[in-house]
Amino acid sequence: MSMNSFGHLFRVTTWGESHGPALGATVDGCPPGVPLTAEMIQVWLDKRKPGQNKYTTQRREADEVRILSGVFEGVTTGTPIQLMIENTDQRSKDYGDIAEKFRPGHADITYWTKYGIRDYRGGGRSSARETAARVAAGGVAREAIKMLAPDLKITGFMVQMGEHKTDKRDMDQIDQNPFWVPDADAAATWADYLDGLRKSGSSVGAMIEVVAQHAPAGLGAPVYAKLDTDLSAAMMSINAVKGVEIGAGMQAAMLTGEANADEISMGPDGPVYSSNHAGGILGGISTGQDIVVRFAVKPTSSILTTRKTITKSGENTEIITKGRHDPCVGIRAVPVGEAMMACVILDHMLLHRGQIGSNQGKIG
Amino acid sequence: MSMNSFGHLFRVTTWGESHGPALGATVDGCPPGVPLTAEMIQVWLDKRKPGQNKYTTQRREADEVRILSGVFEGVTTGTPIQLMIENTDQRSKDYGDIAEKFRPGHADITYWTKYGIRDYRGGGRSSARETAARVAAGGVAREAIKMLAPDLKITGFMVQMGEHKTDKRDMDQIDQNPFWVPDADAAATWADYLDGLRKSGSSVGAMIEVVAQHAPAGLGAPVYAKLDTDLSAAMMSINAVKGVEIGAGMQAAMLTGEANADEISMGPDGPVYSSNHAGGILGGISTGQDIVVRFAVKPTSSILTTRKTITKSGENTEIITKGRHDPCVGIRAVPVGEAMMACVILDHMLLHRGQIGSNQGKIG
Amino acid sequence: MSMNSFGHLFRVTTWGESHGPALGATVDGCPPGVPLTAEMIQVWLDKRKPGQNKYTTQRREADEVRILSGVFEGVTTGTPIQLMIENTDQRSKDYGDIAEKFRPGHADITYWTKYGIRDYRGGGRSSARETAARVAAGGVAREAIKMLAPDLKITGFMVQMGEHKTDKRDMDQIDQNPFWVPDADAAATWADYLDGLRKSGSSVGAMIEVVAQHAPAGLGAPVYAKLDTDLSAAMMSINAVKGVEIGAGMQAAMLTGEANADEISMGPDGPVYSSNHAGGILGGISTGQDIVVRFAVKPTSSILTTRKTITKSGENTEIITKGRHDPCVGIRAVPVGEAMMACVILDHMLLHRGQIGSNQGKIG
Amino acid sequence: MSMNSFGHLFRVTTWGESHGPALGATVDGCPPGVPLTAEMIQVWLDKRKPGQNKYTTQRREADEVRILSGVFEGVTTGTPIQLMIENTDQRSKDYGDIAEKFRPGHADITYWTKYGIRDYRGGGRSSARETAARVAAGGVAREAIKMLAPDLKITGFMVQMGEHKTDKRDMDQIDQNPFWVPDADAAATWADYLDGLRKSGSSVGAMIEVVAQHAPAGLGAPVYAKLDTDLSAAMMSINAVKGVEIGAGMQAAMLTGEANADEISMGPDGPVYSSNHAGGILGGISTGQDIVVRFAVKPTSSILTTRKTITKSGENTEIITKGRHDPCVGIRAVPVGEAMMACVILDHMLLHRGQIGSNQGKIG
Repeated sequence: MSMNSFGHLFRVTTWGESHGPALGATVDGCPPGVPLTAEMIQVWLDKRKPGQNKYTTQRREADEVRILSGVFEGVTTGTPIQLMIENTDQRSKDYGDIAEKFRPGHADITYWTKYGIRDYRGGGRSSARETAARVAAGGVAREAIKMLAPDLKITGFMVQMGEHKTDKRDMDQIDQNPFWVPDADAAATWADYLDGLRKSGSSVGAMIEVVAQHAPAGLGAPVYAKLDTDLSAAMMSINAVKGVEIGAGMQAAMLTGEANADEISMGPDGPVYSSNHAGGILGGISTGQDIVVRFAVKPTSSILTTRKTITKSGENTEIITKGRHDPCVGIRAVPVGEAMMACVILDHMLLHRGQIGSNQGKIG
Repeated sequence: MSMNSFGHLFRVTTWGESHGPALGATVDGCPPGVPLTAEMIQVWLDKRKPGQNKYTTQRREADEVRILSGVFEGVTTGTPIQLMIENTDQRSKDYGDIAEKFRPGHADITYWTKYGIRDYRGGGRSSARETAARVAAGGVAREAIKMLAPDLKITGFMVQMGEHKTDKRDMDQIDQNPFWVPDADAAATWADYLDGLRKSGSSVGAMIEVVAQHAPAGLGAPVYAKLDTDLSAAMMSINAVKGVEIGAGMQAAMLTGEANADEISMGPDGPVYSSNHAGGILGGISTGQDIVVRFAVKPTSSILTTRKTITKSGENTEIITKGRHDPCVGIRAVPVGEAMMACVILDHMLLHRGQIGSNQGKIG
Repeated sequence: MSMNSFGHLFRVTTWGESHGPALGATVDGCPPGVPLTAEMIQVWLDKRKPGQNKYTTQRREADEVRILSGVFEGVTTGTPIQLMIENTDQRSKDYGDIAEKFRPGHADITYWTKYGIRDYRGGGRSSARETAARVAAGGVAREAIKMLAPDLKITGFMVQMGEHKTDKRDMDQIDQNPFWVPDADAAATWADYLDGLRKSGSSVGAMIEVVAQHAPAGLGAPVYAKLDTDLSAAMMSINAVKGVEIGAGMQAAMLTGEANADEISMGPDGPVYSSNHAGGILGGISTGQDIVVRFAVKPTSSILTTRKTITKSGENTEIITKGRHDPCVGIRAVPVGEAMMACVILDHMLLHRGQIGSNQGKIG
Repeated sequence: MSMNSFGHLFRVTTWGESHGPALGATVDGCPPGVPLTAEMIQVWLDKRKPGQNKYTTQRREADEVRILSGVFEGVTTGTPIQLMIENTDQRSKDYGDIAEKFRPGHADITYWTKYGIRDYRGGGRSSARETAARVAAGGVAREAIKMLAPDLKITGFMVQMGEHKTDKRDMDQIDQNPFWVPDADAAATWADYLDGLRKSGSSVGAMIEVVAQHAPAGLGAPVYAKLDTDLSAAMMSINAVKGVEIGAGMQAAMLTGEANADEISMGPDGPVYSSNHAGGILGGISTGQDIVVRFAVKPTSSILTTRKTITKSGENTEIITKGRHDPCVGIRAVPVGEAMMACVILDHMLLHRGQIGSNQGKIG
């Protein structure tokens, strides 16, 4: 129910604003006995951290996570884990313009309309900084998954930046470029493209794909807890995301039944599929194939071009957003998407174990 | 939490299988005092009902809804509304093949793997028949919305069938053709196309758009109850849906910040936007513009072409699905999408009223 | 969240009014593979059924349950189980007085005040008939428990009726008298006492105790899902219940630390306790001892003595409730309390399995 | 669902252990525009703070609350409010005995059995320190209530300590003695009694009553969100509480229908009741009378008398708990009970507004 929480049994509540004293995540329902240190979580926060290269915002945040509860002698206790990240870069500046004017394409106007008050500093609660809390929670989920399904591997990467797409999945390349793109050629092209955008003060959208390999079959539950549903909700809840798809996704609209049906045959370790249009999920339940999710991130509204807008008092005016910003926020959305995938999968592992136990239907 | 429920305050739980005695929806949290009769709900069920033309399954279901509780003297009482639809067409037939073999692209194999038991008759719980219960619940939501926001209008239509797309939004055309497509020319082309598919025993996917006009600003709540999130979860939870997008959606990945930002100016009744890439939702909260959602439905796996598959005992075999089926299940997904939109919007109206009341930030 | 639902993983939603067409329970989250027939559930409904002896209302209800979904070939499928009980005794009568006047001590006035509408026939949703749905759901829970913890036994009984209390726990006596009291002497005394009350058109309250024997240790979770919390909520949610206690309960206020502490020693099969002031629950988690809950049921407000009240239009008047009624509704609350205990315990078994699995801390 | 959360719309999640770095509460769903400062919350924490007199534990905790999010320029924003209290008194000491032995009557053994790990320092998550977080959350609820129902007043007090009861409700006395007892004579007697207990290293239970005056009629919702249910769950979830009752409570078992029925007449401002056996709640919905809840707190298990117990390795042994402790933890439970009442009432105000709005049935 809670508006800032997600998950059924592994339940994450995030809190905090961009320029408040701190932000974080309250993680409830984690299994006990999971080895956990701040360092294990920090790895993922560092991956998301802004200011790492010229393509992400130059805001400098240490993004250092502290575990305030739920861990004793290096191991989770099964009680709530509080993860806190203090905001170190709260530099005082003149927000006057943003306080009075609404940025087109930004949550400014809707927060104001809904609440009658908003923390305009850096976007407040609507800031992408909220996603740091998700990444921290995802770090916990990853450690718990390690215990339950050691082979499971979650990998996120960019597959589109503006009009530049790639169909390559050269996974070894992902860590070799600042865009987490699994395609060395694309990385080179994108670098030039984004450099141009950055210099002109523009921004661009992106598409991210997240894949979970070696996930067990049987995760997910009809009808409103379909694994597709929870994954799409998880991704859509990320700042700036406007579309989500599983497997063939929106392209499924184009396919015939013959093309779409992933044929099944018996392999040495169970069913083997001829293709994966289903994105690893049939009827809301995982098949054991790769779980494949993609989501689209819109371009940031903070750009150097003047746009028409209005003020709080209802006057027509113009706005231009100066200062540090990300030309492509999609870059930093990669570890966020991975974190959401980890949280959803762990949650469904626990749900499955709760309702079903370890007994499942066998084939063969 | 409940796996077969959705909604926060207006909460719908659906139940029932394709070939069981009945199916339905338990609707909790409806405001009291809403005029409601079975006839008001029946209108929408009739729109979804199969067997209405040659393009939908020839299974004959009366789909007659009964209100078993929550209504007294023609008005909702604020207590749970039970909507029941009896299954009249449970014709006895030989399901032997389906009971033993898994249809590629169908939930057969995952239900079996997860639960170790499944009602294989007509797909059981994974059947599209479950959506009748959603449509019934949506009928209730529509009547409640009428009381709270009389101008609000929800309209669904098809915008793509296979490779045939349309960009037209000629709303008067929607009711004039069996595809609910807002484009007379497309309707003609699609008729031929689908006729061919039907005759060859094939099937095809589709894309549906649902628009809510005159929805109030301020609906939705950060971060995990973003209106985008709840809408995408609602649509993705529908049988066979594999992708969801809001406004520019997946295309947002292509856009620059300049193109994406919907500029704002002051109109006589409040803010006016130059465009609607946001699909009526910024920062998870409605702007007052049209709320625009699209979702992709995959083609049904019931086709006349032989496909490779396996049996429960793990042997390789082939399958062909004979009998009545929908060449394009997307057609019947239109009223289902409308119903989900109605439920989500009403739910967020109640949530908004609960947390905020009627006081909101004013502009001007 | 849902106002008519309870449970985390094993989630029950009840619906229906006293004099509507039907009432029932939607049961979600039941493990698959549980053998279940309507007859298994009917046993418990028959125990609760009114009109069985002169001490309960003479209203004649068949209370026959139908399973509309979630069971296939005699076994639960893991999908929602719909249990429906049709109301057969909807005899037409003149409700005029009750429609206009509020019965003191009854929900009449608050339903009207809250909703502005109420189904006054037989109390509508506030009727004790709602508890039939709980008993049906409890029947499902009992069968699932049988599979998971075959030795677990749930027994309810009355320990107080008006000023007549008993401290005896002669369990063999429970089924031997119409009050489910574990004390043959008390049964005789109570029979005379209640006969007098019945003849004078009066009513009286009662105290019920429910015990779960052989429940596994480790059920329950701090802080807001303490087993005490969920049990007390479950019991307090029953019609007419105004107090709940676990173990020593309200008497704990009187005890010293020395008296209250149940000493522990090591027995052949694990820890053994010298007493059970804790009612089988420490820190919200079951110890493995008997789980002991008591709840107080207030007397029904339907009595033959004239009471002062007001009308809907605000005029002072008097009321007297004629017709069939229960002199002690507590009698029929016994199977209801058992059902709630079964639901809560099964729910926590699933929750425990979900978060922890089968690994627990060992002693010795 | 979350095990450490409560509330529907006003939702509180507490976190933290007795001897970890910090503890706190994440408060979601608070209405925007509520004036809020740390000082407003601190008032209530100071009331609960240990070490204030010789009757409460001498552990010294500053219990200073910080607001980390959700408040901007002194006013709530409608986004999550994070309240953090750092643990200042984490003095290093030898916990060896407690780490290996289980205290009878304490959560030690069940936490170990359930989780296979526990933070034994000061009870970890099962410590009464968790209630500080509730008091902080209650402080937020009180400020929101002030805005919505300015006359509403919540007052908690002790009515029993061990065998000493009082029936007096001399509200002016409550703040005049260390026991919050509304009876000057009782205060004197109790002081002597507790002094004796303290010196002998014993402890005793207590009964607390919490009253909400001037609460609006219409709060609460059948069937599982009865106001009684949510209040009893809220109180029962408090550390050491074993019994809860509303109005006549457990005594309702003794009453006849004539005695129990609060007669109604029409007063100048609406219905007036001759008595309040219902504790202000009929059919789960508030009547507008005082809402009256009582709960029993068991004595702390930390006593100076030797008790029999076992070790983790399963050996019989004895234990004696040295060091600071509360002879009557019930004293500090008073502000905790008030806080829970505030949270539940605010939550139901929001729920009522959400489902019903401001329209209600009128009388007269």
